[in-house]
Amino acid sequence: MASTISYQRTDRTVPTRSPERASWDRETVHAILDEGYVCHLGFVRDGAPVVLPTLYARVGERLYAHGSTGSPALRGARQDEGLPVCLTVTHVDGIVLARSAFHHSINYRSVVVHGTARQVTDPAERAEALDALVNHIVPGRADDSRRANAKELAATAVLRLDLAEVSAKVRTGGPNDDPEDLELPHWSGVLPVTRGYGAPIPAEDLDPSIPVPGYLATR
Amino acid sequence: MASTISYQRTDRTVPTRSPERASWDRETVHAILDEGYVCHLGFVRDGAPVVLPTLYARVGERLYAHGSTGSPALRGARQDEGLPVCLTVTHVDGIVLARSAFHHSINYRSVVVHGTARQVTDPAERAEALDALVNHIVPGRADDSRRANAKELAATAVLRLDLAEVSAKVRTGGPNDDPEDLELPHWSGVLPVTRGYGAPIPAEDLDPSIPVPGYLATR
Repeated sequence: MASTISYQRTDRTVPTRSPERASWDRETVHAILDEGYVCHLGFVRDGAPVVLPTLYARVGERLYAHGSTGSPALRGARQDEGLPVCLTVTHVDGIVLARSAFHHSINYRSVVVHGTARQVTDPAERAEALDALVNHIVPGRADDSRRANAKELAATAVLRLDLAEVSAKVRTGGPNDDPEDLELPHWSGVLPVTRGYGAPIPAEDLDPSIPVPGYLATR
Repeated sequence: MASTISYQRTDRTVPTRSPERASWDRETVHAILDEGYVCHLGFVRDGAPVVLPTLYARVGERLYAHGSTGSPALRGARQDEGLPVCLTVTHVDGIVLARSAFHHSINYRSVVVHGTARQVTDPAERAEALDALVNHIVPGRADDSRRANAKELAATAVLRLDLAEVSAKVRTGGPNDDPEDLELPHWSGVLPVTRGYGAPIPAEDLDPSIPVPGYLATR
């Protein structure tokens, strides 16, 4: 059943440029989303675009983000019609240096999600989403922290965006120089971009008898 | 003269949340922009938001991006009125683990630029912008590559966005737990997020007598 393997293509998710880099494969999309935790969320305010970095988590075919109930953007999502958004996640994997300036490029993996974000009101779904937002960044952390109390829950808006109109775009490999440029004397290849974590820094007021938890030590 | 030190604040650049993290200081904004090279560019298409990752470079108080002249988005910027955009750059510096789930956060530095992008038509400015786009990612590389020829220039659209309506947002430091949570048994602190570069990977067809250039070896 193709529909379970891939997202349906739409005018918005079929790129006009570099179509060979596009993918609608669910596993590809999920893997890119699960590797990150900061997205860039775009919406329209007073007719103009706004793009803000925010945290997200995936639960099955749903993405969750959260914010203050006082946020103007999230207030927009509270109304019945929801808030039209574009949510984009990008990982940069390498800088591609070609002999020609024109063919310089970036190796990257990105996912673009179009849809309507809505505020979640069901308490059970809100609790699940908030746990997911913590565990998506640091797996296992939700159980090792104090969960939100009533006052905090009242101050927190949870946004949901279903994965329906989605595509990934992936570039890998070396430079694609034109044949007539191959003899030029310029070094060409890929400078890999790496990401990682430093040693955990305890809070100044942390009880020194509390050890670094295993879910951090193993990263 | 305050106007030369800071960008003028507008309704769009004064945040409703965490105003203590906001800055309109030019040096702060420039430093954040200059450390990155991938932005998330938002615009409105058929009334809906679109957010795409793209490369950018700063030249003084101008940002440049480029793309194919066939791109629908860039075609929008060709018209006299230009294309209203929001260009956002984000660096993630650390994951902040508080005792409470609610106070979990991210240390980050971001810049949000609102404005109207316009296609650059002046040949000298286009050449300067294209060099800047290469040098912004790998300083010194523009001189060590073949510059665009007439055909490539004809296929390349250069977008310009002036830095006028701009703000930065910066979070640093440890968790801000509530006093009543300080005795909880959960580890708290910051997991630093690091970025770097791996060893350069030569193109498969690179003449092995061409050494890795100094501008890569020293990164």
